[in-house]
Amino acid sequence: MKALTKIAVFVLFAVFAFGAAYAQFAKPEEAVKYRKSVMFLIVQHFKRMGAVVQGKAAYDKDAFSANADTLAMLATLPWDAMMVPGTDKGDTTLSSAVFDKPAQFQKAAESFETDTAMLADTAKGGDLGAIKAQFGKAAQNCNACHKQFRK
Amino acid sequence: MKALTKIAVFVLFAVFAFGAAYAQFAKPEEAVKYRKSVMFLIVQHFKRMGAVVQGKAAYDKDAFSANADTLAMLATLPWDAMMVPGTDKGDTTLSSAVFDKPAQFQKAAESFETDTAMLADTAKGGDLGAIKAQFGKAAQNCNACHKQFRK
Repeated sequence: MKALTKIAVFVLFAVFAFGAAYAQFAKPEEAVKYRKSVMFLIVQHFKRMGAVVQGKAAYDKDAFSANADTLAMLATLPWDAMMVPGTDKGDTTLSSAVFDKPAQFQKAAESFETDTAMLADTAKGGDLGAIKAQFGKAAQNCNACHKQFRK
Repeated sequence: MKALTKIAVFVLFAVFAFGAAYAQFAKPEEAVKYRKSVMFLIVQHFKRMGAVVQGKAAYDKDAFSANADTLAMLATLPWDAMMVPGTDKGDTTLSSAVFDKPAQFQKAAESFETDTAMLADTAKGGDLGAIKAQFGKAAQNCNACHKQFRK
């Protein structure tokens, strides 16, 4: 019974998520371009903060905080576009594992959203030590998710 | 004296803005890709709301509000990337007017930011009539700015 409930929840999530994702894009190519655009922006803002964390750029509280806010917002955007059926084919690095393991994918997405939201909060405090630690946590999500869901 | 002050303010703005813009990108191509990515996302979220405003999609308060919030945040992002010297050349639609008329460009950018922020506020109220009016105001910025600053 427990297993059945689990499967039912998976299916419900999948139907809801894939349905919603599908409806938002006029064609699959738009979904691919959408998520690539978001990921490019995420990398840009990560790099700006990474330079500060690594001591290659000066720490400016407001600028860092603005980058962290932007990252946290961008972190909520790409997932729907990754769940459009068939968009694991063609010019993309999306792995079909997204469709095979939707619950794990959702978990990875939520972890990234949570850690970047916490980074945005931490950045407002201005404690560079705490910021560096939380930046590290947020950054760990990249590899963890890419290992599973990127070709 | 008044004219001189005006010029001094222009120059100060230009030096600050172009300096800041330049520092954020590792190379000019990144600035071009950055602003193209943002503009693509802006168009996507505009289209989703436009479908509702035109009666082609059902109005869902939360979904509309989420789109309006995302648009308001995205509206703050592309300007620095448009002010990187030399990026009006090559594979871009950016007009050199951005560099010739920085104060007008800044004004156009601020107008878009203000109107999209107001749309996000209006969307939270759930009054579809007010939302449609503010959506129209926000959308007018596109043509107004493109006419002057897009090739």
